[in-house]
Amino acid sequence: MKDKRKLLEVFDNTYPERDYLIIHQANEFTSVCPKTGQPDFGQITITYVADKKCIELKSLKMYLQSFRNDGIFYENVINRILDDLHYVMKPKWIEIKGVFTVRGGIFSTVIASKGIKPNI
Amino acid sequence: MKDKRKLLEVFDNTYPERDYLIIHQANEFTSVCPKTGQPDFGQITITYVADKKCIELKSLKMYLQSFRNDGIFYENVINRILDDLHYVMKPKWIEIKGVFTVRGGIFSTVIASKGIKPNI
Amino acid sequence: MKDKRKLLEVFDNTYPERDYLIIHQANEFTSVCPKTGQPDFGQITITYVADKKCIELKSLKMYLQSFRNDGIFYENVINRILDDLHYVMKPKWIEIKGVFTVRGGIFSTVIASKGIKPNI
Amino acid sequence: MKDKRKLLEVFDNTYPERDYLIIHQANEFTSVCPKTGQPDFGQITITYVADKKCIELKSLKMYLQSFRNDGIFYENVINRILDDLHYVMKPKWIEIKGVFTVRGGIFSTVIASKGIKPNI
Amino acid sequence: MKDKRKLLEVFDNTYPERDYLIIHQANEFTSVCPKTGQPDFGQITITYVADKKCIELKSLKMYLQSFRNDGIFYENVINRILDDLHYVMKPKWIEIKGVFTVRGGIFSTVIASKGIKPNI
Amino acid sequence: MKDKRKLLEVFDNTYPERDYLIIHQANEFTSVCPKTGQPDFGQITITYVADKKCIELKSLKMYLQSFRNDGIFYENVINRILDDLHYVMKPKWIEIKGVFTVRGGIFSTVIASKGIKPNI
Amino acid sequence: MKDKRKLLEVFDNTYPERDYLIIHQANEFTSVCPKTGQPDFGQITITYVADKKCIELKSLKMYLQSFRNDGIFYENVINRILDDLHYVMKPKWIEIKGVFTVRGGIFSTVIASKGIKPNI
Amino acid sequence: MKDKRKLLEVFDNTYPERDYLIIHQANEFTSVCPKTGQPDFGQITITYVADKKCIELKSLKMYLQSFRNDGIFYENVINRILDDLHYVMKPKWIEIKGVFTVRGGIFSTVIASKGIKPNI
Amino acid sequence: MKDKRKLLEVFDNTYPERDYLIIHQANEFTSVCPKTGQPDFGQITITYVADKKCIELKSLKMYLQSFRNDGIFYENVINRILDDLHYVMKPKWIEIKGVFTVRGGIFSTVIASKGIKPNI
Amino acid sequence: MKDKRKLLEVFDNTYPERDYLIIHQANEFTSVCPKTGQPDFGQITITYVADKKCIELKSLKMYLQSFRNDGIFYENVINRILDDLHYVMKPKWIEIKGVFTVRGGIFSTVIASKGIKPNI
Repeated sequence: MKDKRKLLEVFDNTYPERDYLIIHQANEFTSVCPKTGQPDFGQITITYVADKKCIELKSLKMYLQSFRNDGIFYENVINRILDDLHYVMKPKWIEIKGVFTVRGGIFSTVIASKGIKPNI
Repeated sequence: MKDKRKLLEVFDNTYPERDYLIIHQANEFTSVCPKTGQPDFGQITITYVADKKCIELKSLKMYLQSFRNDGIFYENVINRILDDLHYVMKPKWIEIKGVFTVRGGIFSTVIASKGIKPNI
Repeated sequence: MKDKRKLLEVFDNTYPERDYLIIHQANEFTSVCPKTGQPDFGQITITYVADKKCIELKSLKMYLQSFRNDGIFYENVINRILDDLHYVMKPKWIEIKGVFTVRGGIFSTVIASKGIKPNI
Repeated sequence: MKDKRKLLEVFDNTYPERDYLIIHQANEFTSVCPKTGQPDFGQITITYVADKKCIELKSLKMYLQSFRNDGIFYENVINRILDDLHYVMKPKWIEIKGVFTVRGGIFSTVIASKGIKPNI
Repeated sequence: MKDKRKLLEVFDNTYPERDYLIIHQANEFTSVCPKTGQPDFGQITITYVADKKCIELKSLKMYLQSFRNDGIFYENVINRILDDLHYVMKPKWIEIKGVFTVRGGIFSTVIASKGIKPNI
Repeated sequence: MKDKRKLLEVFDNTYPERDYLIIHQANEFTSVCPKTGQPDFGQITITYVADKKCIELKSLKMYLQSFRNDGIFYENVINRILDDLHYVMKPKWIEIKGVFTVRGGIFSTVIASKGIKPNI
Repeated sequence: MKDKRKLLEVFDNTYPERDYLIIHQANEFTSVCPKTGQPDFGQITITYVADKKCIELKSLKMYLQSFRNDGIFYENVINRILDDLHYVMKPKWIEIKGVFTVRGGIFSTVIASKGIKPNI
Repeated sequence: MKDKRKLLEVFDNTYPERDYLIIHQANEFTSVCPKTGQPDFGQITITYVADKKCIELKSLKMYLQSFRNDGIFYENVINRILDDLHYVMKPKWIEIKGVFTVRGGIFSTVIASKGIKPNI
Repeated sequence: MKDKRKLLEVFDNTYPERDYLIIHQANEFTSVCPKTGQPDFGQITITYVADKKCIELKSLKMYLQSFRNDGIFYENVINRILDDLHYVMKPKWIEIKGVFTVRGGIFSTVIASKGIKPNI
Repeated sequence: MKDKRKLLEVFDNTYPERDYLIIHQANEFTSVCPKTGQPDFGQITITYVADKKCIELKSLKMYLQSFRNDGIFYENVINRILDDLHYVMKPKWIEIKGVFTVRGGIFSTVIASKGIKPNI
């Protein structure tokens, strides 16, 4: 799974001096449970304040699709996406939230962030 | 796209000494993606605390409609509207929020503001 | 429009030493646009912490109905109601919120308040 | 209406050293308007942090039902329940909220509390 | 009811140096009222910031199912789950929330927590 | 309970030659369970095609309120209202529907009608 | 109220040989109760299959607004609109539905139609 | 499971000559999967037209609760309830519907009926 | 507007001997009002039973987008789309429904169809 | 894709003489678009009246998951599932419905069935 970062493209932020929020919500995330081999489904929300770079939407879609046949736990999906997006954009602040569909009667949500949220 | 500001009209705020909120939400915003040429659709919400001027509603509608055939990215739509409305009204505080319809399975939201929000 | 305050009746607050919230929401407010002569429709919400007086509900209804054929802008409707209710009740804190129906594809909301909100 | 407190039963709080929230919401509250004699309907929500005693649910139901044929204003219903429940439980903090059905096109809500809300 | 803790399994937190939220919501919780012998139904939500251990989802399901035929009050269900999960995971912070179905026209919610919530 | 019909007033139908639907829905119906003495709550919907008479709304409200302290089963509430309204109006067709709030975890609905529904 | 029909304008139906549905829903209808003088509010829905003429939307709006200060019962509002629209358009089939806001805890709906609904 | 019918009580239908609908919906049904031993949860809706007997609500609740620890498939739950209720009431028509919570990402519904539905 | 049909592509129906439903709903339709020059917005739903050909989705999107700057009435939009899609696919049955956003406080819907709906 | 039928298991219908409905709804269906290679997502609903056999739920889940990496059009997904399930169960009647997520601003639904629906 090392090469996923290569899928991500960035573009220049036209307003780097202004702290403003960008939110992307992907409703069609799917990966595979490493214990059971069963597919997992969830909704991934990416919220960030850009510094010099923004994430390009189409490359973000391809990056998220690349998890389709990976065996990976919920907690690690979220922390992994957080680290990869932070690596390519170096945002001022970024938060990743995953809301996963019910398994065994239990819904799960994982939320992780990096950097200090600007006061906006 | 330089002349859009001319479309905007303002009127005198009858209660300039009072800090109060004015919110306008336009559900029918559309522009064009500069990369693909495909139409984009979204909802634009303008929230502000007026100083001496308020924005006139009909001129705001015409201003927002003027983006109909412009090729412009989500992030720039929001920052551009923010700058234009700030220029003609000089409000104490103003925030622009755009919620755009799904593209490639991803919903996007952009939020930007200018000035210090009065404590109301 | 000067005599509207006479329509408002108040009654003694039984618990003046306690800071508690009273909220009245009127869904059937209507007035007339002073520019076009077209009817406007909206929902008015009154939230306050009483001092010695509370507003009587039936008189409030009659007061709000008195705007039915008045030509008045959204921003002024809200600030006017705020001033009138403050005048007859002298509450510790009061906020008026108006949510108006869509005009030209744009929804509008106006919120104004007077006094310092008790920490409740 | 003096004897209503006798309807309320309490039981020992098993975890008095821990500040935790207990919320009871009764959707079927009804009393009578003292001015018109017409029935009033509402939803009462009781939120508290217990000290040594908790309110017993069945007795709470009987207590709330006892207002069925009482003539009493909204504001006084809420403040009265607040005082009665505080009297029998001596909670660290308690809040009573009443949301009443529309009368003359107006919805009303009243919220009152007693004590200092623990930081939880 | 002493042996329930044995049902719970934990696994190592891969990102212990990062404070992030994990939320599990079980919609199908049922136990028995100790007074009436009638079944109770509710929704249990577990929110925590892990330290070195995370709770394993399948064992959590089995643990929650073990209450199926136990006679236990709402308040004690929540405090008991809080103590058991805290015992096996030693999280930085944990909160348990139970939303129970209507009984005698009254909905009940109980919320308890342990530890200091990290600023995230 | 014999005299309830006297509470109902009718007025002349201005369009008796046209078969059209009239629907009245009362959300605040309450009576008393004859077995337990506990209050029952429900929503009553009256749908009819008038012949020569229509039911007057205020008298309908008073009629429905008259059940407030009556001990009567759900099934009989609905059939009783059906018979009484049919008696005073002689409509071409009439249906009464009652949706009652949950008791012991069970919601109940009762629907009864009289006459032949015109093909409209 | 005789001259209202003059407010209505029609235009030629481009597809008279095809039976198709046209539906107009006006959410902001208001008139006055002839008994109490209080304002009534409702939603009017017009559904029809045109023959040679269609109703022009702006004139329909003006026509509906003309009831603003008329004293008229719900049942008559609907039957009157039905007769007026049928008079100016001579549609193959037309139905008028009015859903009025709650009065005295009771919602009312009136539905009337004229002509035979084509099988579409 | 043979003796469940003894739990059901009936009472005389006061209006046997009139065909009217009675609907009972139980949201808190639970049984056990005979294959996995895991608990199943669902909502059971009973709709019938009585002949001489109606089902007594409290006994219906006890009857449905009696499945709590039975191992039984969805399809058989519904057909079994249908046969038992038909046996004790001999209704003109009866339908049982079960909506079960998601298992393995799949929601299931089963609907069965007996008798000929009267034309009401 | 004559050349729009060239935008539409079809593909062979793999199951022509089976009558089955295909439904496409486009939420982002926009055209221009021929009277006012103002943009119109709506949702177009296409439902059909194919004969030998199905409509290709991407070409359908381009076809619908081609109305973006056309001045055309609601009624004609729907009848035009109906005729064009029928021309290129020759389906057994097809229905076009347009739900347009509010204009002057009035929502409009237009529904037209061609062919005989198979009994499915 | 020929061997998918082997994944499906059936079990004996305990009530073959009674015509009753069985409905299974899978919210997490995903396959791949054969034109673009992009993942498709949808909800599949299977409704049938069994004859001698019912479909086993776990095998149905595995069968539906087997489409995960197949390139197949919406229309063919639905008709293929219809043929496969009919082949292994020989039901009296069966219907397959697929509701797919938005692509290019267009939602799509496909519905196909086999056999004659019993009158239930």
